[in-house]
Amino acid sequence: MVGGGQLARMTHEAGIPLGIKFKLLSDTPQDSAAQVVSEVVVGDYRDLDTLRAFARGCDVITFDHEHVPTEHLRALEADGVPVRPGPDALIHAHDKGVMRAKLTEIGAPCPRHRIVADPADVTVFAEEGDGYPVILKTVRGGYDGKGVWFVRSEADAHEPFRAGVPVLAEEKVDFVRELAANIVRSPHGQAVAYPVVESQQVDGVCDTVIAPAPDLSEALSGEAQQLALRIAAELDVVGHLAVELFEVRDADGNPGILVNELAMRPHNSGHWTQDGAITSQFANHVRAVLDLPLGDPRPRAAWTVMCNVLGGDYPDMYKPYLHVMARDPQAKIHMYGKDVRPGRKVGHVNTYGDDLADVLDRARHAAGYLRGTIVE
Amino acid sequence: MVGGGQLARMTHEAGIPLGIKFKLLSDTPQDSAAQVVSEVVVGDYRDLDTLRAFARGCDVITFDHEHVPTEHLRALEADGVPVRPGPDALIHAHDKGVMRAKLTEIGAPCPRHRIVADPADVTVFAEEGDGYPVILKTVRGGYDGKGVWFVRSEADAHEPFRAGVPVLAEEKVDFVRELAANIVRSPHGQAVAYPVVESQQVDGVCDTVIAPAPDLSEALSGEAQQLALRIAAELDVVGHLAVELFEVRDADGNPGILVNELAMRPHNSGHWTQDGAITSQFANHVRAVLDLPLGDPRPRAAWTVMCNVLGGDYPDMYKPYLHVMARDPQAKIHMYGKDVRPGRKVGHVNTYGDDLADVLDRARHAAGYLRGTIVE
Repeated sequence: MVGGGQLARMTHEAGIPLGIKFKLLSDTPQDSAAQVVSEVVVGDYRDLDTLRAFARGCDVITFDHEHVPTEHLRALEADGVPVRPGPDALIHAHDKGVMRAKLTEIGAPCPRHRIVADPADVTVFAEEGDGYPVILKTVRGGYDGKGVWFVRSEADAHEPFRAGVPVLAEEKVDFVRELAANIVRSPHGQAVAYPVVESQQVDGVCDTVIAPAPDLSEALSGEAQQLALRIAAELDVVGHLAVELFEVRDADGNPGILVNELAMRPHNSGHWTQDGAITSQFANHVRAVLDLPLGDPRPRAAWTVMCNVLGGDYPDMYKPYLHVMARDPQAKIHMYGKDVRPGRKVGHVNTYGDDLADVLDRARHAAGYLRGTIVE
Repeated sequence: MVGGGQLARMTHEAGIPLGIKFKLLSDTPQDSAAQVVSEVVVGDYRDLDTLRAFARGCDVITFDHEHVPTEHLRALEADGVPVRPGPDALIHAHDKGVMRAKLTEIGAPCPRHRIVADPADVTVFAEEGDGYPVILKTVRGGYDGKGVWFVRSEADAHEPFRAGVPVLAEEKVDFVRELAANIVRSPHGQAVAYPVVESQQVDGVCDTVIAPAPDLSEALSGEAQQLALRIAAELDVVGHLAVELFEVRDADGNPGILVNELAMRPHNSGHWTQDGAITSQFANHVRAVLDLPLGDPRPRAAWTVMCNVLGGDYPDMYKPYLHVMARDPQAKIHMYGKDVRPGRKVGHVNTYGDDLADVLDRARHAAGYLRGTIVE
């Protein structure tokens, strides 16, 4: 696996019972996954020679992030190394411009969008619709709210162009809430769909995920799952695909969905599956990239809630960690081995049960207490 | 953790979400756990200098097996390294003679037993009770049926004395079935009790575990749990304690229990907890030895069944592995990364659900298919 973050850490964890020998390409020996994996190569994934040396002897290469240059992935494939997901799929997660073009081509519902040339062109784009505000995104390099701007006027629209990367403009969607449809697909086309979840963001960062999404009609849930399965098939995705969605209402109040983002790897909106589903997203990602039969994605509890643990003002979480464990012996805490820095994702908590209000309260309390925003 | 077997492998897996940095002392770099742990020291646990060098910088030392010499554990403690469970507890799992003496002292129900001097003394022991057959055990070094003899006559009784280790004689218990009461205890005395399970052995090796034990009365189940908790407290056990039990009937047909063996580490009879309990034995063992608050031991399903996967005649399990995954997407397969040798434990399968017959059938089919004893 290329990339030593928490997704690689949890993928390794899920691979252990499957008998998988996991090899990691990590930026540093201290990275989250590098702390727990036996075979770690420290190196820069942007360097083709490093990637090639790493790939030698691997049965398959997969990824913790979307940042490996597409031409490097093609070079690995030319060397005969299976790359899953492959570069032709991954380009859609790597480049938001390519993603929007492809989704539009296959008829997937998207916000109004186009590549814009400069601030003046942003105003033209705004006026083609309902005017400002507009969302601007650099087509490459963004995540967790980085590389995304909420722009209220042409004067606001200069910053995104400074990186020298093409800029995508999108209408500001007046959404009801955010959903995610997560599926896993294997090379021979077997696919499983997890229940559609509700994802709540705070300051552009995922805060809470509720599985399944409360009060979501069976029709809309099925539509979202079918859409995710279709995107995976059309783009030939292998492994876990997260389709982040906006739930919207049309002029008549009828519900619908629009695709916000794609991620082709295990995803924060699927962390609940570790404790809430029969087979976790990580285990199924491993099974998919190795072309093993996929595991059952169904939920094990009526409700599962995931809350991210962000770093707070106190670098030492040991005492709150003890408190949270003692207060709720059922809470499932997942720590990433990262140093605490304010706002940094350092772990998450999963809770599950029959009563959503209780499950939500327990997850929020545990995550808030670990961060230091709740002190009782 | 000292010892690189599958118990260490699965303890590391359970420590990853807890944010634990795991260090391993392993006999070889190919051992089950050594394949998946970042920090591995290859060395001999019987060598005190090796143990001391390994222990440097560890917050706590725990064990995958009971074979570390007691005097070495005392030396580590004298060096100031917390050893959990400590040597005064572990001696009871290390030496069956010491274990029987202590259990008798605290009034725990045991089979009739005493240390025997030679084959003639075995006959005296037999005639003190109902005669032959008698069970003979070397007090140290046995596991999985090794170091245990079923002796029908004095002529059979020579072999056990050849190792030069004291030999314990025990009556052959006419048991109804075997049970295990598993608990976890932390240094400050917090303890949790898992549901009592039924354990089925084939040729002296654990084959199937059913959780909870079917048709076990609440009274006997409570008695077994209380007994395990009392043994842990009296022996000052820290971590996971497995109390292997015989379920017996007295002359009037009233049910009772006798202690068969103790294990002070995660145990085969607790593997079902990985998928069947809120907190696994491995996670609670880690929490206990680090003196973290313990997790909820309650079951997540009405029935969970664990079947061991033993090596069969075919060294390559890949095709049966595919078949089993495809046939039952709900089955939870745990492989240990070991080379297949006939009769060797190379993995286990957990299944769970509401219908015991179905759950049992699925686990047995998967394990049998992997071994090669079931081919359809």
